[in-house]
Amino acid sequence: MKHDLAHRFEHLDENMMKVEVNLDDISSEWLGYVMDLLFEVGVNDVFYIPIYMKKNRPGVMLQVLCDTKNLELVKSIIFAETTTLGIRYYPASVHRLERRFIKVDTHLGRVSVKQGFHKGMLVQQAPEYEDCRKLAEKHKIPLQLVFQEVWKEL
Amino acid sequence: MKHDLAHRFEHLDENMMKVEVNLDDISSEWLGYVMDLLFEVGVNDVFYIPIYMKKNRPGVMLQVLCDTKNLELVKSIIFAETTTLGIRYYPASVHRLERRFIKVDTHLGRVSVKQGFHKGMLVQQAPEYEDCRKLAEKHKIPLQLVFQEVWKEL
Amino acid sequence: MKHDLAHRFEHLDENMMKVEVNLDDISSEWLGYVMDLLFEVGVNDVFYIPIYMKKNRPGVMLQVLCDTKNLELVKSIIFAETTTLGIRYYPASVHRLERRFIKVDTHLGRVSVKQGFHKGMLVQQAPEYEDCRKLAEKHKIPLQLVFQEVWKEL
Amino acid sequence: MKHDLAHRFEHLDENMMKVEVNLDDISSEWLGYVMDLLFEVGVNDVFYIPIYMKKNRPGVMLQVLCDTKNLELVKSIIFAETTTLGIRYYPASVHRLERRFIKVDTHLGRVSVKQGFHKGMLVQQAPEYEDCRKLAEKHKIPLQLVFQEVWKEL
Amino acid sequence: MKHDLAHRFEHLDENMMKVEVNLDDISSEWLGYVMDLLFEVGVNDVFYIPIYMKKNRPGVMLQVLCDTKNLELVKSIIFAETTTLGIRYYPASVHRLERRFIKVDTHLGRVSVKQGFHKGMLVQQAPEYEDCRKLAEKHKIPLQLVFQEVWKEL
Amino acid sequence: MKHDLAHRFEHLDENMMKVEVNLDDISSEWLGYVMDLLFEVGVNDVFYIPIYMKKNRPGVMLQVLCDTKNLELVKSIIFAETTTLGIRYYPASVHRLERRFIKVDTHLGRVSVKQGFHKGMLVQQAPEYEDCRKLAEKHKIPLQLVFQEVWKEL
Repeated sequence: MKHDLAHRFEHLDENMMKVEVNLDDISSEWLGYVMDLLFEVGVNDVFYIPIYMKKNRPGVMLQVLCDTKNLELVKSIIFAETTTLGIRYYPASVHRLERRFIKVDTHLGRVSVKQGFHKGMLVQQAPEYEDCRKLAEKHKIPLQLVFQEVWKEL
Repeated sequence: MKHDLAHRFEHLDENMMKVEVNLDDISSEWLGYVMDLLFEVGVNDVFYIPIYMKKNRPGVMLQVLCDTKNLELVKSIIFAETTTLGIRYYPASVHRLERRFIKVDTHLGRVSVKQGFHKGMLVQQAPEYEDCRKLAEKHKIPLQLVFQEVWKEL
Repeated sequence: MKHDLAHRFEHLDENMMKVEVNLDDISSEWLGYVMDLLFEVGVNDVFYIPIYMKKNRPGVMLQVLCDTKNLELVKSIIFAETTTLGIRYYPASVHRLERRFIKVDTHLGRVSVKQGFHKGMLVQQAPEYEDCRKLAEKHKIPLQLVFQEVWKEL
Repeated sequence: MKHDLAHRFEHLDENMMKVEVNLDDISSEWLGYVMDLLFEVGVNDVFYIPIYMKKNRPGVMLQVLCDTKNLELVKSIIFAETTTLGIRYYPASVHRLERRFIKVDTHLGRVSVKQGFHKGMLVQQAPEYEDCRKLAEKHKIPLQLVFQEVWKEL
Repeated sequence: MKHDLAHRFEHLDENMMKVEVNLDDISSEWLGYVMDLLFEVGVNDVFYIPIYMKKNRPGVMLQVLCDTKNLELVKSIIFAETTTLGIRYYPASVHRLERRFIKVDTHLGRVSVKQGFHKGMLVQQAPEYEDCRKLAEKHKIPLQLVFQEVWKEL
Repeated sequence: MKHDLAHRFEHLDENMMKVEVNLDDISSEWLGYVMDLLFEVGVNDVFYIPIYMKKNRPGVMLQVLCDTKNLELVKSIIFAETTTLGIRYYPASVHRLERRFIKVDTHLGRVSVKQGFHKGMLVQQAPEYEDCRKLAEKHKIPLQLVFQEVWKEL
């Protein structure tokens, strides 16, 4: 178990924006695509919520969490790639833990583990999904076995 | 409180079909419309379920409950009005209560109440929504007050 | 294709309010009704979100988007027509595109198309649902065929 | 029907905070547990929303409504008991009705009923679930019959 | 790590029934209650699915998985405790793994772990939630730490 | 617009199986992964449904549609990659339309369009998502513009 040098201090980010759009006239195929585009430009999160809209329409709400300085870019992508005529948003604070990445060696191979520290105490340890997935595919074993091997070393 | 003559015996309907379609490339506007069309031809129920489909698509499952003898008609409407290339279905039994409709007089007006009997015992009493809605609009009072007035008479 | 004179400039509306209520002791029949009432008084949007509440209750969150000057009216309707004892809300900004309505002539009939402009560029074109629905019913053809005829003319 | 002395005035609470966390790497077993913990420390509400996250993950959003003075405590619980590395939040106003509790006597037993008053007018009357549940269990009758008996007395 | 004697062979259960009811006129409070009642009489599973029903109603589908020999009892509870006038159902096969329970000793205390065997191979190991919850409460530590301690011993 | 030779006759497939698993103790990360694995072995569809499970757990139902001859393989993957101890399934019929693929040339490039025929009549025309996505990326234009160009040629 080796410690990576990468880390950030725990902090409060007061410049985040939550962006929302309700959609009732769009193909879900396009929604999968716009999620990819938004992640590519570096937003913090993108996700969908099922909603019940007027006239018996099973709609979807797109929610994006992004830095306020990227708001214009996010809006441009949403106006271009979805069918909406309006985008709503409101500021949000985000409390982020200090993050460190450590490398954990198992008999299956090496895996990064993301750690979260709250007031200096270790509260989260999450094996990186992509590392575990690659080892599962390499060894042709279930993904959950890879996670279990990592947990044993933590 | 007067008794209506309309009623049906409690019975088991073995000829029902549950029809399902997954949709990830359709506008919700069209889904509200096809629900109306399906009810118009007399299916027993139509509803949507939010589902998570491949490629991050927030899709929708259409479910229809209909009599087996209407299956071909239901399939024709779904093929014409949605974007699907396949419809799946499987038989289901339905246990239906004996139903009676009674008229209940309140100081706001008369309301139909649907009753359900299981093995001869009254187990359900539901004021008809459309009757209550009309009285709420006529008297310009909240809908829940109308329901409460009916419940007091039951 | 004729241009309608109606249009609005693209703008930022800073006076919107997002209103939320969690409900775990109400009939869905009443929820369909209160949605209609809220649209009738001119709110911008009303929709429901499925939520998981305490004691294994599959509840519903009502969300309303309205102008701040209508907040009192919206609250009165919600207190009268739902079962809640508290309503929460927070301000939201809405970026609205410039909207124009054009008329498009197809061999099936005329349809309004709502256009959205972002920084002067056309980014959205949506055939009006109600116009398309009427043509589908008039010609007894699938709704999607009507939309397709309109798209060909855009 | 007797009046309880307990009541509160209708008021606007400007010090509430809405707290949100997106989760895609946690067991639902733990989510049921953290809901209990959060209610125990006195938050106003806790609930979950199904969301569609990246990489085809059917995630969950945890939402908590709490007083701003409890924000640090709520964050500590969430960081300790969930797998998140960040918590977002934003202020919300809550309009609360005046509440009174009355006791209603039915032939099944006594039940508390929570009343809500808006501008001095009675707009809500809700039989207390736990009281009704106990009477249903005591008399071995359906829960809905207990509620109906209470409604008749209101 | 000690082995418990309890176990069952892997088998196919052909006598299961899936029971479904759509509900659009019921309080969620009652739905939490009927879930408890159904588990008490020994059904295999009870859960709710959010559905979009006619007239803009955010309804709920109740699904129950039970042995066919308990079908009549399940139907009686649903007719008594919900507002439905009809219950639908269809047979389902269930492939169940061989189950064994082992006791795992950690420095926090002893925990049962449920194991699942497929064709003789161990494929599942799940620490019992209730055991872990008790240890978390006893030691006043996060629930996830208890699970992690158990995983290290597996 | 050129016709592809590939096509299939409209037919009824009576050998399909619907497979279901309820999950309340699994990471969503693993659920995205198992969806990929199941598609790789050729199942017809995989998707998730949000469900409300006991003890306030926001669970997920995995549903798979596959040919009966692949049932054992599907079960093995689910037992290996998820945390379930039981898998339920029931037969379903699937009515599949005759499918043809045509190539459509637009000024942006060539796109495959999947057509569906019901009783010899063309009822569906769907531009292939992956083709449209590539053209959107190549020309750096919104995805919806590519779809619109294809629709104009249909």
